[in-house]
Amino acid sequence: GDITLAQAQKILTAAVKKAEEIKVPMNIAIVDAGGNLKAFYRQEDAFIGSIDISIKKAVTARYFNMSTRALGAASQVGKSLYGIEVSNNGLILFAGGVLLVDGNNVIIGAIGVSGGSVDEDESVAMAGAAVIK
Amino acid sequence: GDITLAQAQKILTAAVKKAEEIKVPMNIAIVDAGGNLKAFYRQEDAFIGSIDISIKKAVTARYFNMSTRALGAASQVGKSLYGIEVSNNGLILFAGGVLLVDGNNVIIGAIGVSGGSVDEDESVAMAGAAVIK
Amino acid sequence: GDITLAQAQKILTAAVKKAEEIKVPMNIAIVDAGGNLKAFYRQEDAFIGSIDISIKKAVTARYFNMSTRALGAASQVGKSLYGIEVSNNGLILFAGGVLLVDGNNVIIGAIGVSGGSVDEDESVAMAGAAVIK
Amino acid sequence: GDITLAQAQKILTAAVKKAEEIKVPMNIAIVDAGGNLKAFYRQEDAFIGSIDISIKKAVTARYFNMSTRALGAASQVGKSLYGIEVSNNGLILFAGGVLLVDGNNVIIGAIGVSGGSVDEDESVAMAGAAVIK
Repeated sequence: GDITLAQAQKILTAAVKKAEEIKVPMNIAIVDAGGNLKAFYRQEDAFIGSIDISIKKAVTARYFNMSTRALGAASQVGKSLYGIEVSNNGLILFAGGVLLVDGNNVIIGAIGVSGGSVDEDESVAMAGAAVIK
Repeated sequence: GDITLAQAQKILTAAVKKAEEIKVPMNIAIVDAGGNLKAFYRQEDAFIGSIDISIKKAVTARYFNMSTRALGAASQVGKSLYGIEVSNNGLILFAGGVLLVDGNNVIIGAIGVSGGSVDEDESVAMAGAAVIK
Repeated sequence: GDITLAQAQKILTAAVKKAEEIKVPMNIAIVDAGGNLKAFYRQEDAFIGSIDISIKKAVTARYFNMSTRALGAASQVGKSLYGIEVSNNGLILFAGGVLLVDGNNVIIGAIGVSGGSVDEDESVAMAGAAVIK
Repeated sequence: GDITLAQAQKILTAAVKKAEEIKVPMNIAIVDAGGNLKAFYRQEDAFIGSIDISIKKAVTARYFNMSTRALGAASQVGKSLYGIEVSNNGLILFAGGVLLVDGNNVIIGAIGVSGGSVDEDESVAMAGAAVIK
């Protein structure tokens, strides 16, 4: 149950298409079930600082098997996971990291997107994740 | 569209002049369009700990194409980018990092200043950035 | 003079084709002219430890504008650059990192490949680099 | 007995002049007596990977109060300091790092140069160091 390069390419293509539709240049990272980088694209003019963030979003989502939005909600000031971001060489606590779950409901990896607002990032990640369901 | 050493020297000279006017010794760092260090000055008695902060401010501004003040505003407790500072080996979220944009409106790098209050730092960064517009 | 995502995809496709021909699963990383990650593919069963090596090979080639093979030759025991690998958070001194030079002889980035023998890695990198000349 | 910014600028100017004479674009770093970055210039087309190396050369020279050439000679395979380069977050063991000693024979810092052959680098470092003697 691990992502293939062919699947990753299909996901990247769908994510790029969505990014082009909303006209926001993105960094798009895909990690496998082990949380290791599988594939990555950076569009022209996408933030340089979002390379690392997109990868960390994908890693964060897979490391805890939830979206970075969900982990972030549990990590705010006063919440139970407050401060978790300093673990694992840095986690990202805002939206844009989404699990990749295939048609058999198996987690095969995660996608992280960074370049726009966190809602834009997440919409691109979900467009990518949708194609393998 | 990348900064030249001659431009960087001109920016440093203007920033030093401003720092002398406000009588606060500063660390002043300039990175190019790729986010790599281009030039750096530390004035006498400027904080040693501000070497790294000035460089990180310049990198942060270029990595996200906005001032560190603007990024910081979006990263406060409860805001959408809360926790972003753990990415990219450490980002700086307070004022003093400013984009360098030339007369043709091209981003050619960024300047980061550290040594005084964040408002003082930013005033020196802006004095530097102004000379290439 | 910087690499586009379309160019990076073309290079990755050519590199993957070569890797399939020689039947060695590879990690293939592309960095832009600033040395920042632009695109990445990992084939099924390629070494996990080669993710970092492939990226560092690409970075190393661009950071010194020569192949990692050439830099490695100058860094052997008794040679002038002995020990250089501890700089820049780790350089890779064996073959598999190659500059990306376009038809106008402009350096637009670099490619790093890791997964097989260093000669196999370099053959895949060169197959990728060839398509933009 | 510490270097001033005015002295550092004078040294940088002399080093740049030498680099232009030998037609090799250089990264030139100056650290103070405490081993902390004081000033830095990168010329157009100088290797990106040499930013870190030039700074490490200056730090290395000051940390052990000898040129990186001299430290390198004592650190080769079979020599007494073999392996020292992994300390201090990475030392550089080849020529191009030189102490800055003023007219009163006081060590006020060090200069590190990287961008050409190690002999070229060292010639630029020495041209810079000469102006404060």
